Amino acid sequence: MKWKRTHSCGELTINEVTQSVILMGWVDRRRDHGGIIFIDLRDRYGITQVQVNPNSEAYNEAKKLRSEYVVAFKGVVVARPEGMINTKLKTGEIELVASEIEILNMAATPSIPITGEINASEDLRLKYRFLDLRRADMQSNMIIRHKTAQIVRNYFSDNNFLEIETPFLMKSTPEGARDFLVPSRVWRGKFYALPQSPQTYKQILMISGFDRYFQIVRCFRDEDLRADRQPEFTQIDVEMSFIDEEDVFSIMEGLMVRVMKEILNVEIKTPFQRIPYNTAMEKYGIDRPDLRFGLEIHNISDIVKESEFKVFSDTVKAGNIVAGICAPGCGSFSRKQIDDLTAWTKEAGAKGLVAIKVKENDWDSPLNKFFSDNQRKEIIKQFNANDGDLFLFVADEKNNALPILGDLRIKIAKQQNLINPNLYKMAWVVDFPLFEYSTEEARYVACHHPFTSPVPGDLDKLLSEPEKVRARAYDLILNGLEIAGGSIRISDSDIQSKMFKALGISDKEAQSKFGFLLDALKYGAPPHGGIAFGFDRLIMILTGCSSIRDVIAFPKTASAASLMDGAPSDVSSEQLLELGLKIVDGL
Amino acid sequence: MKWKRTHSCGELTINEVTQSVILMGWVDRRRDHGGIIFIDLRDRYGITQVQVNPNSEAYNEAKKLRSEYVVAFKGVVVARPEGMINTKLKTGEIELVASEIEILNMAATPSIPITGEINASEDLRLKYRFLDLRRADMQSNMIIRHKTAQIVRNYFSDNNFLEIETPFLMKSTPEGARDFLVPSRVWRGKFYALPQSPQTYKQILMISGFDRYFQIVRCFRDEDLRADRQPEFTQIDVEMSFIDEEDVFSIMEGLMVRVMKEILNVEIKTPFQRIPYNTAMEKYGIDRPDLRFGLEIHNISDIVKESEFKVFSDTVKAGNIVAGICAPGCGSFSRKQIDDLTAWTKEAGAKGLVAIKVKENDWDSPLNKFFSDNQRKEIIKQFNANDGDLFLFVADEKNNALPILGDLRIKIAKQQNLINPNLYKMAWVVDFPLFEYSTEEARYVACHHPFTSPVPGDLDKLLSEPEKVRARAYDLILNGLEIAGGSIRISDSDIQSKMFKALGISDKEAQSKFGFLLDALKYGAPPHGGIAFGFDRLIMILTGCSSIRDVIAFPKTASAASLMDGAPSDVSSEQLLELGLKIVDGL
Repeated sequence: MKWKRTHSCGELTINEVTQSVILMGWVDRRRDHGGIIFIDLRDRYGITQVQVNPNSEAYNEAKKLRSEYVVAFKGVVVARPEGMINTKLKTGEIELVASEIEILNMAATPSIPITGEINASEDLRLKYRFLDLRRADMQSNMIIRHKTAQIVRNYFSDNNFLEIETPFLMKSTPEGARDFLVPSRVWRGKFYALPQSPQTYKQILMISGFDRYFQIVRCFRDEDLRADRQPEFTQIDVEMSFIDEEDVFSIMEGLMVRVMKEILNVEIKTPFQRIPYNTAMEKYGIDRPDLRFGLEIHNISDIVKESEFKVFSDTVKAGNIVAGICAPGCGSFSRKQIDDLTAWTKEAGAKGLVAIKVKENDWDSPLNKFFSDNQRKEIIKQFNANDGDLFLFVADEKNNALPILGDLRIKIAKQQNLINPNLYKMAWVVDFPLFEYSTEEARYVACHHPFTSPVPGDLDKLLSEPEKVRARAYDLILNGLEIAGGSIRISDSDIQSKMFKALGISDKEAQSKFGFLLDALKYGAPPHGGIAFGFDRLIMILTGCSSIRDVIAFPKTASAASLMDGAPSDVSSEQLLELGLKIVDGL
Repeated sequence: MKWKRTHSCGELTINEVTQSVILMGWVDRRRDHGGIIFIDLRDRYGITQVQVNPNSEAYNEAKKLRSEYVVAFKGVVVARPEGMINTKLKTGEIELVASEIEILNMAATPSIPITGEINASEDLRLKYRFLDLRRADMQSNMIIRHKTAQIVRNYFSDNNFLEIETPFLMKSTPEGARDFLVPSRVWRGKFYALPQSPQTYKQILMISGFDRYFQIVRCFRDEDLRADRQPEFTQIDVEMSFIDEEDVFSIMEGLMVRVMKEILNVEIKTPFQRIPYNTAMEKYGIDRPDLRFGLEIHNISDIVKESEFKVFSDTVKAGNIVAGICAPGCGSFSRKQIDDLTAWTKEAGAKGLVAIKVKENDWDSPLNKFFSDNQRKEIIKQFNANDGDLFLFVADEKNNALPILGDLRIKIAKQQNLINPNLYKMAWVVDFPLFEYSTEEARYVACHHPFTSPVPGDLDKLLSEPEKVRARAYDLILNGLEIAGGSIRISDSDIQSKMFKALGISDKEAQSKFGFLLDALKYGAPPHGGIAFGFDRLIMILTGCSSIRDVIAFPKTASAASLMDGAPSDVSSEQLLELGLKIVDGL
């Protein structure tokens, strides 16, 4: 390198005209116009047009330039002629007239396009990630990710939180998802585990008196991967002492206000809505409802119970429900459209779908005769339905009907363009159940995790009626996604022991897995609670990306492989021998 | 919890007198004085004295309080009587007169003392880390660690660096230390490795055009542990494009200035001294000299070559060296002291030690007669020695003599109190050799790592005379410790291939291990370089701790075990079966 760079490719303006400067970057585009060579020189900061004239010393070298060559230009900044100004570029008013050139590196023809629309397969993009990351949208995603992390860290620091690093090589305590294991060489036959979350450590930190902890931290889950999961992911991890739910909410709301304002320039109102879990299920059929549109589910069981329409009345009498949504303006749906919706609903597991159009403030349906005037009016009133709307009813078991209607609600909203993509609707979902029954494991498992505090009033049901115990757990939802989840923790070692018992974990097993936490709880644990925030998903929302892989610099595929470097890979037999391990046929 | 905390235990002053407040914290100490109970209530922020009077509602509960109980007090802030003010505490002018109390949690008797001098063994402290971390010095260490990380991140962000997260599950490419391996369940028989550093990824990020990257990141090395090493450690990782050594130096100097100022209120002068590796070895006998004191080594071979003292002249004639230090004021050493030094020097591997006192501007030694007046004067002049000083000479092979004299230099400096503990002397050591010969592996290995650029002028010796090739590598040293190391990288794929060849790595092996980097270098790599900073060690220096374990929240022992949670531990045979692994007898 002969020179020092004086400016980036994104900063020269009319103010620098006549200055002599040195720029370095990549050849984004080269055009030859009547003997003059024009180079669009690119770096992370922008693009500057460079002009190399045939009489310049740089000309012969410039002729060698190809796309993605790395090059340095020395030259003078000149104003572009009136008609040539590019108002889309920050540097669009000037160009660099090059007097000298140094080619810093050559480049093979890129295997995927760097500029413009990307139509390469994702596998090819991942294999050539070093090229893919040059693309403007990937650069922007990484910059937004960096900025957001900085905002998060400064916010928590400003609020007296300490970032404390917790171990990556920890004890294996699988509860829920599988741990990634790390064989120990020094302690042959023993293993560390990579953290699924720093949960136990952050509780220890509260017991140690750190009062307010956060960490932006990598976590690991060896799950069978779904499209949008990664074996390693990043979490904003938070824990606070001497607090209750509202303290956690207000800290996190403040964070979201700051992030949304600084990254998207969007103003978010606080406090966020609080929605009990049961309400969410009943109104939206899901525990993370998209609140950007209405279309709420209404339960009409009480009204139709006495109707002559057997499908409905028998359902209610059998202890199940009739519920539905009112699709605005969909009264004009064709027979075909309604048949398609019905087929879709059956596919989703419902027995059927009853569609009724609203016309002249009454139903417009062959079913009218099975219902009294009053029943029909009552239902119209309950939904606040208007002429031209379409009722869509499902009669089924509650646990089946509600999620299907929840999906139908979203399907209709998308189809009818009811979702404003510029809205950001956040809410807290609260009062989750503490347990759910796992038929696979034939025992109750923790909905959140085994350190979640029961609601004090439900404590007496912990062992007798576990399914009725509510948890002091909460989720933060945004536009139909769960972006954070947390709880007030158990700070009493007796209750923690009881909790393990309710989960069918023996004293011995609890002691061997979580003995240090049970111990620590006996030495003066403060009331505490916290939350964990899916950082990758947050960045996905902030960047408007549809894949989590587009906001991670070096992601794995859905089958947990890294296509760029070929991980995981074979290792040498010496390495295995040192670890005292042998590869055998597994399950 | 009945109440909300209104203040921390570290903030009430005379300004809050008469206010009704609620404090929560741990019982640091309880004293009963003439019926009145005094509680020192502690949290992360400080200690507040609470007074519970016998006529107060809180009194009966307060009598139950023991050390480390977690408790909430409601009461009124009152000024302490004149004679009772504690000027050492921020809250020392006031106390809280409690009217109500809520015991939030009880505590077993702590297994190690929380307050005052700690005399528990380190193993006990590590087992009860949740208690150990309550101690004031551990709290302070974690706070300094947090603050430093924030300063580092804000500094780099302010300077246009992006923090980009790199994978923890990567490809195993052992070169140097051993990788920790992570078996894959999905790809049975294959393994990920935990990163020893994000070296290849950060170079990829430069090739991707991110220009300036940093990350505070965990790294892993499965080494046989020395006292102050951890299997997982934290690194400040930095990489920059279109730069040379001086750009890296000036960025890092700016960082050090900011950190030292904001954490220690110490002003550091820049630019730091640059010391070539050879000079460091010759003047200090080590490549990370402590520059807080002089005592430089001088080579007197040329002067003594012609002397009649055979021990010296024969040594020089055999191609070896005579060198020494001049210990100021040590001319008064007793025979016993000199014998001890001689014994120590022989223990260290030297053939012997020649000690000569300086008196009346001449030597005061039975050896005087073997040297000419001129030779003796010349040596006194070279060292700038004064009456009362003591020369300590070693005659040996250069590679043996210099390190021993380097150790002797430090020994004398400590013994004579020549080291000012309040000085922070930083310097860059430069011009390292690129290779060193490993007799164990019977090949040249990279002193830094195989991606380090040779000095361009030495390129032609890469394969013919590797031992003569200098590296574009540099270390940042502080008070005798290496705190950072880095290099300008190879950005040319042909030179990188040659480098692998020089290291005895075949094309096939290079392709299989580092193929993605070799590939990436062909697609337009900018000139780039960077540095990695030992974050744990930096915090050790900033906190004045002598053990790295005191600046890590949950460290491992020297045998890589976690005494608190018992990692590493046995895992179930199901877990192993799923991974397709079996434990066998190892080496």
